[in-house]
Amino acid sequence: MQEDKFINLLQKEFLIPSGIGDDAAIFSKNYVISKDLLVEDVHFRVKYSNNEDLAYKALQVNLSDIAAMGAEPLYVLLGIAIPKSYEGQTESFLTNFSKECKNNNLILIGGDTTSSPNKLFISITIIGMSNRPKRRNTAKIGDIVCVAGNLGHAHIGLQALENGIENFNKYKKNLLRPKALLKEGIWLGNQASITSMMDISDGLLVDFKKLCFASNVEGQIDTNKLKITEEFVTACSALSIDPISTKLTGGEDYGLLFTVDQKIYQKIYTDFLTNFSYPLKPIGRIINGKNNEVSLKPKIELKQKIFSHFGELK
Amino acid sequence: MQEDKFINLLQKEFLIPSGIGDDAAIFSKNYVISKDLLVEDVHFRVKYSNNEDLAYKALQVNLSDIAAMGAEPLYVLLGIAIPKSYEGQTESFLTNFSKECKNNNLILIGGDTTSSPNKLFISITIIGMSNRPKRRNTAKIGDIVCVAGNLGHAHIGLQALENGIENFNKYKKNLLRPKALLKEGIWLGNQASITSMMDISDGLLVDFKKLCFASNVEGQIDTNKLKITEEFVTACSALSIDPISTKLTGGEDYGLLFTVDQKIYQKIYTDFLTNFSYPLKPIGRIINGKNNEVSLKPKIELKQKIFSHFGELK
Repeated sequence: MQEDKFINLLQKEFLIPSGIGDDAAIFSKNYVISKDLLVEDVHFRVKYSNNEDLAYKALQVNLSDIAAMGAEPLYVLLGIAIPKSYEGQTESFLTNFSKECKNNNLILIGGDTTSSPNKLFISITIIGMSNRPKRRNTAKIGDIVCVAGNLGHAHIGLQALENGIENFNKYKKNLLRPKALLKEGIWLGNQASITSMMDISDGLLVDFKKLCFASNVEGQIDTNKLKITEEFVTACSALSIDPISTKLTGGEDYGLLFTVDQKIYQKIYTDFLTNFSYPLKPIGRIINGKNNEVSLKPKIELKQKIFSHFGELK
Repeated sequence: MQEDKFINLLQKEFLIPSGIGDDAAIFSKNYVISKDLLVEDVHFRVKYSNNEDLAYKALQVNLSDIAAMGAEPLYVLLGIAIPKSYEGQTESFLTNFSKECKNNNLILIGGDTTSSPNKLFISITIIGMSNRPKRRNTAKIGDIVCVAGNLGHAHIGLQALENGIENFNKYKKNLLRPKALLKEGIWLGNQASITSMMDISDGLLVDFKKLCFASNVEGQIDTNKLKITEEFVTACSALSIDPISTKLTGGEDYGLLFTVDQKIYQKIYTDFLTNFSYPLKPIGRIINGKNNEVSLKPKIELKQKIFSHFGELK
């Protein structure tokens, strides 16, 4: 069951044309709520994610959904199903989770705990607030498409960890300890010229396609603008993966993908740089096309299949 | 890791004396939110719960948490982790889930879907609203303790199903298709004389103890008031389980446990009967005692250990 099919079915059943599909759902006008599952051996491995990493990441991937709405996170609920093998580590996980909540001024208001027959399951719900939540179904033709954050870094880390390769610690950290771009999300959320926004969890290409589909527009990625450093190429080469495919399809970096009104783009670029001391990356355009797809210009052949978690169905 | 330990740890870490522990958490004054996990072979078995049963029960056990707060349910989020073995049934599950949401005027606003290495995991979040949510930490000495709904019925159904025994269809239905007492919860929520409330998911004795602990009071169950019908005794006898222990410890009936100001009790009893055409059951008192325990009067020896799901840690 692919996620798209799931969303389509729910939209059909509930007759909601665009109510489902954002990173977080909007309710009572100003509230947003996200709900993400993290499943052992689908989204993480206990063998190389310690409790501290896991608690950190479980919270950050959910915070990233709130960031993507331009909202401020307020409350969190934690559900956890614990297998016998993990029982000894649960207290440490919870202590670290609590620490991370405090670091983000989040209040834990509830949750549920149970045993699990074998795998560890974590389900987190975060409630946030925004006066005008950003959505992914509002991109307009002519908009500049931008990314804040890394592309492909976590995928290098994943490949190194899965294949038991030493070094690449920077990239391993990108995978194990992604940081939600909360401040950037709130700032972008306050700019009227940001026409749409979502986070990049499944890779740029897949997520940009989702944005185009939701907005009923066509997208184009300028592949020459995907800045690929020598260090990135060297790492990909050592792992026998293609650098540009990794940029386009590597998942789990938890950056932000957003569209900017072209008339205001230059000001947004400058103000973003001033506020965050690193530049946003313009990577393409919303164009006047016939379908809701994303094209690559100049065209390139992807040398890797679309990113998936270890066992994720895509 | 027992649930009590989990709650204690979270209270310690987050320094919330009584913020966690209700069936649903209160936020922004009038909202309540519940989050329950349902794990295959911990909370349900696929072999005797079909998709319709499972979708129905998954929603009802979460609605029961909202009912326990005296709140009206508004929105739902569904998280589901699907093993290969269940993929063919997912669409039917979702269609049934959607039907149940509509039957309860619930709007599905979001969720998450993923694969699972082997077991089916369902995580549901429901948001509700109440002007004055009821809590479990507000029972007062002298209050009459009451139950709305069945006691022990689902446990008979569970025993019959687990042991592959035919008949007992009424009790099997109590287990597979529990109905959240939403109308009763909302009505009780509106009565100022209902001093505290929670639902009974883990059995009367365990849940009453939780209420006493949260309220820092002592409770007493009048075991003579646990009305045990001949039919109930016959069923227990056929399954070799003790009737009174089953009444006291059988879980998953999803009734409501609440305390009533003794001065107003008679009016509540009569009004409840008028509104719902069945009586609430007075089963005990909140007494002026030294600990937060629950005593049985007259004392009886429990012949069964405390209810647990198939693999639940208690």
